[in-house]
Amino acid sequence: MELSSGSPSARPAVAPVAAVLPAGGSGERLGGATPKQFCALQGRPLVSYTVRAMERIGWISNIIVVVSPENIETMKSIVEKYDHKRVTVVKGGITRHRSIFNGLKVFADNEFSNHLLQKPEVVIIHDAVRPFVEEDILSKVVMAAKEHGAAGAIRPLVSTVIASAADGCLDHSLERARYRASEMPQAFLFDTIYEAYRQCTDYDLDYGTECLHLALKYCKTNAKLVEGTADLWKVTYKRDLYAAESIIKDNLSQQVCVVTSAEEAVAQVGFLLHESLKSQIKVEAISISSSKNDSHLQNIFSGQCYNFVCLNDKKYAIQDFQLVDMLEKSNIPLLYPVVLILVYLDVSENISFSIGMEELTRIKKFSREVKNKNILVYGLLIQYKVCNYFSTCKVSSFDHLLLQDTVNSAAALIMALIKDRNPELIGQLLVA
Amino acid sequence: MELSSGSPSARPAVAPVAAVLPAGGSGERLGGATPKQFCALQGRPLVSYTVRAMERIGWISNIIVVVSPENIETMKSIVEKYDHKRVTVVKGGITRHRSIFNGLKVFADNEFSNHLLQKPEVVIIHDAVRPFVEEDILSKVVMAAKEHGAAGAIRPLVSTVIASAADGCLDHSLERARYRASEMPQAFLFDTIYEAYRQCTDYDLDYGTECLHLALKYCKTNAKLVEGTADLWKVTYKRDLYAAESIIKDNLSQQVCVVTSAEEAVAQVGFLLHESLKSQIKVEAISISSSKNDSHLQNIFSGQCYNFVCLNDKKYAIQDFQLVDMLEKSNIPLLYPVVLILVYLDVSENISFSIGMEELTRIKKFSREVKNKNILVYGLLIQYKVCNYFSTCKVSSFDHLLLQDTVNSAAALIMALIKDRNPELIGQLLVA
Repeated sequence: MELSSGSPSARPAVAPVAAVLPAGGSGERLGGATPKQFCALQGRPLVSYTVRAMERIGWISNIIVVVSPENIETMKSIVEKYDHKRVTVVKGGITRHRSIFNGLKVFADNEFSNHLLQKPEVVIIHDAVRPFVEEDILSKVVMAAKEHGAAGAIRPLVSTVIASAADGCLDHSLERARYRASEMPQAFLFDTIYEAYRQCTDYDLDYGTECLHLALKYCKTNAKLVEGTADLWKVTYKRDLYAAESIIKDNLSQQVCVVTSAEEAVAQVGFLLHESLKSQIKVEAISISSSKNDSHLQNIFSGQCYNFVCLNDKKYAIQDFQLVDMLEKSNIPLLYPVVLILVYLDVSENISFSIGMEELTRIKKFSREVKNKNILVYGLLIQYKVCNYFSTCKVSSFDHLLLQDTVNSAAALIMALIKDRNPELIGQLLVA
Repeated sequence: MELSSGSPSARPAVAPVAAVLPAGGSGERLGGATPKQFCALQGRPLVSYTVRAMERIGWISNIIVVVSPENIETMKSIVEKYDHKRVTVVKGGITRHRSIFNGLKVFADNEFSNHLLQKPEVVIIHDAVRPFVEEDILSKVVMAAKEHGAAGAIRPLVSTVIASAADGCLDHSLERARYRASEMPQAFLFDTIYEAYRQCTDYDLDYGTECLHLALKYCKTNAKLVEGTADLWKVTYKRDLYAAESIIKDNLSQQVCVVTSAEEAVAQVGFLLHESLKSQIKVEAISISSSKNDSHLQNIFSGQCYNFVCLNDKKYAIQDFQLVDMLEKSNIPLLYPVVLILVYLDVSENISFSIGMEELTRIKKFSREVKNKNILVYGLLIQYKVCNYFSTCKVSSFDHLLLQDTVNSAAALIMALIKDRNPELIGQLLVA
């Protein structure tokens, strides 16, 4: 494909592609006070997810977010807080089409802006409330727009569409197979869509909803329709926020990093835990030995792992300040909460082992502090026989089964904590 | 309204309304092996929620669930397990229309069944994968069907609908305001829809999707269109299962019942907890005093409360067998998991209080046993000064604030446990 994948600083003289995200909706269908694009998912506003989906694509040179006047400052603070790059916040109009038109004007209209952005060849238009858009469909609509002047993602209809008569009765139903739902993203040659907006009527601007229709009506451009995947859906109702939150949690719980020290007991339980976890989730194992600044650990931090299990044999020692430091520096917790599970091995043979309240209080205090850094800390206790079970002492197969049971139970708790990411449960000590 | 609200045994000579639930879909859009109607939400298959939504309405005399041949036994076992009444399981055809037709035949076709059910005046057709249907819309479509012969719920379109040309480009887009999405439930005079199915062609049966269309084409019946609410949506994709699960959890966490003994310390903490909880959730308070078979408690059990908080001052005593017994007898845990939080007051003044491993093990063992009865038990420890804080001894306002903090923290943990209903965390002892 011909798209430049250069970083913004290295982009070619003619900026190839920009994106306009209308984010001015009032969210009345959601039934809440906060417009849906500003509702928080895992603590971060929905619109930030959509911006991030664009921002991570190097060949999109400018991202224009169009918001209603009262949300300009909110949007600017979101851009700052989550360190979004190549974003310009623009004041929207009173309808969707007027907002999109405002977004386009920053590339073309001197009256609108005294610092014009470089005009792109192709512009993507995408809803701020469709956060799960993938690079694949974006590049497909961009390439189709280059060839056809306009392109848009479509999906099969979920329901039959019907026309009603004036008396509120069925007039006719459409044959479902002949029609499609028009979704986003769409892409246009910039000159085509800008010309369409310049020519269209006030009626179009006030009551229209479909950009493809404007390109057809005013520029005789028949948009190419591109079949999209199910993840193009739009967050419209409250149930969609629930779904989006679950999908994000799902995406965050695909991988866990198990950090162990080299001590024998820890390494052994770590091995069993790894085996038990890996049937459910991708596991990276790291042994921190002599060097604490392990380069392997650095690699993990630059990856997509948001879950860490840290095995200790120091009873309730919080020796993971360094790990927390590294997590912070890695920037991982900026966009998503990171789960850090501190596993303590109870190596006493005494069944009447007990947990002191000071120790519980210490874990809770530590957890509250690092929660401010978007790191969710949980404690997990695994009982482990003093007797060395792999080598020297004789251990019954009964004991072996008991340890395996405990490790399986620990793995189940770890999976539950990772999947739930419940901020209310931080600092609790669970027992496997 | 004219609908009979009698129980099935007392229904009038002419059964007024029956329902047919097509549940034969293969769920290919879901991307999973299990058809979506059989996917479990809070442990119970989706189709059972939809059956329950019909079953609770007394004026629906028969519920016909049409499933594909390979799922007949699964469906029968669901009806048995969840004690659904007035349900007949019928073998479906290879398409949606053929399945619905089969469902209708049990009222009319001697060849199809040797024990005909009493023919209803009106039949509701509703998807098995729309679990949140309310009585209001059901009675609206039934009454409209009595008047017009046919009626169906509609919703505004979420996306613009477009027609594509043969070359895969946009042909035209429909004006969104003129069209509606046809949803379920629909209702028909039985004779009308049955006649439509008898007359329609194999092409209709194999490729059609819209019952309203058949009534129009073959019986000249223009269905009345009834605006439905957003909760009529259809579980189609995996994200819809996530949304449905969240909605069910939301519905289950509307109310909590706080059970306290009459002992002073318990009653006082119970009072503070009640105050802290009631800003977030509806709270019923019950004091179990002399009589353990409190009639108020019985009333709660016959209501819609699925969350119980039980305050104890017996350190880690599991004295709630009786409550568990009553919960079981109440039938509440049959349809939904019940959350039971055992709150222990630590009344020692000693900061170095500790929790023994045997006690933790005891709570876990108990929790595992009652989980089989669909009751999720969690432990929660609240530290409480021995000094009587309300009356006799002088307590500093600092101590007062500390207790209030602890109670607020306990309330936050209770809300988190209730909202999450996480079966993996049962038997854990959390500390407020």
